[in-house]
Amino acid sequence: MTVNELLTEMGKSGVMGSGRLGKALDTLEAMRKDKDCTVFFGFAGAMVPGGMKNIIIDMLKHHVTDVLVTTGASLTHDFAEALGHSHYQGKADADDAELNKQQLDRMYDSYMPNEVYGDMEDFLERHADLLFSEEINISEFLRRLGSVMPTDRPSIIRTCYEEKIPLFCPALADSGIGLMIWGRIAKGKKVRILAFDDLREILDIAWECKKAGVLYVGGGVPKNYIQQAMQFSPKAAEYGVQITTDRPEYGGSSGAGLQEGISWGKMNPAGNYVDVFCDATIALPILYAALKERLGLDK
Amino acid sequence: MTVNELLTEMGKSGVMGSGRLGKALDTLEAMRKDKDCTVFFGFAGAMVPGGMKNIIIDMLKHHVTDVLVTTGASLTHDFAEALGHSHYQGKADADDAELNKQQLDRMYDSYMPNEVYGDMEDFLERHADLLFSEEINISEFLRRLGSVMPTDRPSIIRTCYEEKIPLFCPALADSGIGLMIWGRIAKGKKVRILAFDDLREILDIAWECKKAGVLYVGGGVPKNYIQQAMQFSPKAAEYGVQITTDRPEYGGSSGAGLQEGISWGKMNPAGNYVDVFCDATIALPILYAALKERLGLDK
Amino acid sequence: MTVNELLTEMGKSGVMGSGRLGKALDTLEAMRKDKDCTVFFGFAGAMVPGGMKNIIIDMLKHHVTDVLVTTGASLTHDFAEALGHSHYQGKADADDAELNKQQLDRMYDSYMPNEVYGDMEDFLERHADLLFSEEINISEFLRRLGSVMPTDRPSIIRTCYEEKIPLFCPALADSGIGLMIWGRIAKGKKVRILAFDDLREILDIAWECKKAGVLYVGGGVPKNYIQQAMQFSPKAAEYGVQITTDRPEYGGSSGAGLQEGISWGKMNPAGNYVDVFCDATIALPILYAALKERLGLDK
Amino acid sequence: MTVNELLTEMGKSGVMGSGRLGKALDTLEAMRKDKDCTVFFGFAGAMVPGGMKNIIIDMLKHHVTDVLVTTGASLTHDFAEALGHSHYQGKADADDAELNKQQLDRMYDSYMPNEVYGDMEDFLERHADLLFSEEINISEFLRRLGSVMPTDRPSIIRTCYEEKIPLFCPALADSGIGLMIWGRIAKGKKVRILAFDDLREILDIAWECKKAGVLYVGGGVPKNYIQQAMQFSPKAAEYGVQITTDRPEYGGSSGAGLQEGISWGKMNPAGNYVDVFCDATIALPILYAALKERLGLDK
Repeated sequence: MTVNELLTEMGKSGVMGSGRLGKALDTLEAMRKDKDCTVFFGFAGAMVPGGMKNIIIDMLKHHVTDVLVTTGASLTHDFAEALGHSHYQGKADADDAELNKQQLDRMYDSYMPNEVYGDMEDFLERHADLLFSEEINISEFLRRLGSVMPTDRPSIIRTCYEEKIPLFCPALADSGIGLMIWGRIAKGKKVRILAFDDLREILDIAWECKKAGVLYVGGGVPKNYIQQAMQFSPKAAEYGVQITTDRPEYGGSSGAGLQEGISWGKMNPAGNYVDVFCDATIALPILYAALKERLGLDK
Repeated sequence: MTVNELLTEMGKSGVMGSGRLGKALDTLEAMRKDKDCTVFFGFAGAMVPGGMKNIIIDMLKHHVTDVLVTTGASLTHDFAEALGHSHYQGKADADDAELNKQQLDRMYDSYMPNEVYGDMEDFLERHADLLFSEEINISEFLRRLGSVMPTDRPSIIRTCYEEKIPLFCPALADSGIGLMIWGRIAKGKKVRILAFDDLREILDIAWECKKAGVLYVGGGVPKNYIQQAMQFSPKAAEYGVQITTDRPEYGGSSGAGLQEGISWGKMNPAGNYVDVFCDATIALPILYAALKERLGLDK
Repeated sequence: MTVNELLTEMGKSGVMGSGRLGKALDTLEAMRKDKDCTVFFGFAGAMVPGGMKNIIIDMLKHHVTDVLVTTGASLTHDFAEALGHSHYQGKADADDAELNKQQLDRMYDSYMPNEVYGDMEDFLERHADLLFSEEINISEFLRRLGSVMPTDRPSIIRTCYEEKIPLFCPALADSGIGLMIWGRIAKGKKVRILAFDDLREILDIAWECKKAGVLYVGGGVPKNYIQQAMQFSPKAAEYGVQITTDRPEYGGSSGAGLQEGISWGKMNPAGNYVDVFCDATIALPILYAALKERLGLDK
Repeated sequence: MTVNELLTEMGKSGVMGSGRLGKALDTLEAMRKDKDCTVFFGFAGAMVPGGMKNIIIDMLKHHVTDVLVTTGASLTHDFAEALGHSHYQGKADADDAELNKQQLDRMYDSYMPNEVYGDMEDFLERHADLLFSEEINISEFLRRLGSVMPTDRPSIIRTCYEEKIPLFCPALADSGIGLMIWGRIAKGKKVRILAFDDLREILDIAWECKKAGVLYVGGGVPKNYIQQAMQFSPKAAEYGVQITTDRPEYGGSSGAGLQEGISWGKMNPAGNYVDVFCDATIALPILYAALKERLGLDK
């Protein structure tokens, strides 16, 4: 039984989690098959330590998304792996004091060696002329970083560069990459990366697209940054899939149902949306495997 | 890509939700392939309205489980469908007062017509001699009910009877079936179904099995009833898979990790367990599709 | 600042968790001040190990509730403490294999010594004539148990007996008390406690009351058992407070909003309900402290 | 009964939510009474629409925190209220298309009129010389904004300015304020606010403090931005309280227990931490009311 066959079957129930997963697949398929639709993908959370990097890169290569927004932590994890480091299978109930002595940083049951920071700092320093000599914005910084990123190991940053997919990370300062850039500032060197300037770029994409679709994995800044851009899209988002484990009752953006966006003009009242309440390291691989089958993408 | 291929790939990450789902599949496979192992399956929650009935029946037919424990609500939903009624695809944000006028009972986004109760009552009355004339326990009541259950529509109750799989439901009084039995009592007729007597049966199975394995979907009485039986199994449970969306910090049995059972003597310290934090209407169909592929069961 | 002053202030926000907690207090106050209202209280989860026993006993003594439904585990914990045992402050990340050697049963970060079971068995055996010689139902069994329960330590079971508050526990078989009763059956002695018979009693109370109000802590059998009784109350429940950490999207009864009960005829469409999404070991003491202040109950 | 008396009583249970809330109060008290401790407070989520603004301002005025990090959305809500707009009590199940017509933006059950944006834009434009003529960082931008903020209505931004409490918001671009700044950029005017520059300031504070303590409400950027600063504090954080409804198993920073920070060198292995799993609009007012009582702060 193929993954698509299973999800198609599950979708027939039409109710609860099974039904929502099936509807999410239908929505992703429709969104991507609609030639007028520009797809915005925002993801937060430990997706790279959680083993989702290759899937995300595959999505970028197949242009399942046209724009990517993510967190500084995700790009730091991606950068670290591109430099040859790995996330290790660890234990959630580890002795953290012992890990600290071994210089292993824990993310639930995944470990990353602390030495990645030195390597990132060296790399940024080697490319300082390209990255830090001009006044640029964060998105342009990431584009330039992608242009020099090692090519022997796949990375999200490099793939966005190669595939010309705009990559945004408004809170990049809040990450290991941010800390390495601070190291430069601390040494009295100049860094003039602008905080608000790339808003112009994402809002232009939203403004100019015929139709918009959104895919959210988790909430936080990536979701919200795309959502606010949708207010400037002529028809707001007409397709939407959200995979989250948060819930609406606490009032935050991460747990808000997509439908709430209608009041803001972020989502089109006549659009097609679905909220999937599921761990994204479970739902995303399953949805994407089925989507590839439906879209006829090769492995 | 088959479901098993995907889950096997996901399991390789070894971490977070993907890793746990992969380990759950490995554990279910090992549990069932171990010829010495008796598998106890407990499920709670809206699995029948959520479209999971056919999967559970398939699991019973293939003897993926040897013992079943569930809630009164699940058996009521199963009974209603066996009598020809359906759960309908509805809406979570329905007008409940309007549904009430239409005599539709809502379970999140699934509806059941209220008229099922009359049909259940009639059915029980037609078989009153078999069901109510002797002093029996709940498990025996369900066995007898299975023996007369319509065969033209598949049902969990009937399948357990046909496959000789012991079926337990300690809180059957807390359900639509319970209410129909009360209707009989209210008319002054005698019902002498014993509350504690079938404990003997499940504890005997636990006591006599060489090895035990457990599969839990949700918590509540079904999980706890099996867990307490495990205390009487010679080696406690050596395999365990739990699919839950609850969490341990609130202290209840439903959210407790399987590992907690080691302290009680319910789980073997050297056993193989995994907790999957996921909506069961997503995780169960996926795990079972992959398990069938691994076990070579036909569709 | 008194607890009532704070909650009254919080309630003024009218939104999100603060607003719901304030509304819950108003509803509990109105429910209890309404002389025509019969209050049904159902609680599940580790409330006794979580330190809530004295609060619940205080609620019973002040007749804040008129009917109590709970789980077998809760009554087992209560029974154990009445016999002089204690739940100990432990650790959530304990070594469960070590605890097992020390015969300590863990519930998240609370421990109970395993020896309680022997003492419970002895106690039941000493009172076997009263408890097991006649064909009775579960509620009557608990009433009789309350009549002989030690009086030197407060207990829920004893307080219900003394205050003549009907106590129901449909799944008592699923508990340590159940296991002790099985021990008796295993020795070939007769136990003829009926499973469905006390449904008559709770349904009669529901049927005869002028108005009904419900308070739920957690879901499971206690909530559902009361909810199904509400279908038989002339006007269904007109007041309702639910404290839960579950969520509706998974479809189960524990996470269902009170409003869903309108479709079933369990809740009155014109009633006053509120769902509080909070750990009950936080919300219950706070609500009850404020309620006592409002009702002028002494400590 | 005062709030402090209740929480002190609840803390005695030592287990589950009650115990954690009690420990959180003890930790907050110790953190603030320790004259060597610099307290970092990060909050995310709909705290202002959820009615928590006045409590946060009170915390700032009493210097219960020494540093504040928050989201752009929170500062936008605060800004809007300072300009005379209100968040209204609404309904979670509102007709969002209708709200959109009425120009009301919904956050769960709280509404904000859309017209706030125009007012914010006008305000920023009136103070453009101060805010946009120089190359500054985000924290400095917020300080300058605070210096001109209306004083007739209390605001977080103004209070931080008056009390000289450093205020950070790394993802300010991801907010209504960000959009208004973009409006300026879109008109071809220059905005040269630097993205990474204020990292220097928060890291300096962390580096120079004798001891550090952290208080987190929700996760996201505010928590992570403080956590990464803790890596540069001589002894890492020695006190910590986290109020969250997320959970660790999904691997993200928002749900990670404070203890995980030990592996990273963010938390001191010998420190005093506690995670409280609760809606912050419930836990924060309660903790803070009790803390004021313990610290002898006047209302």
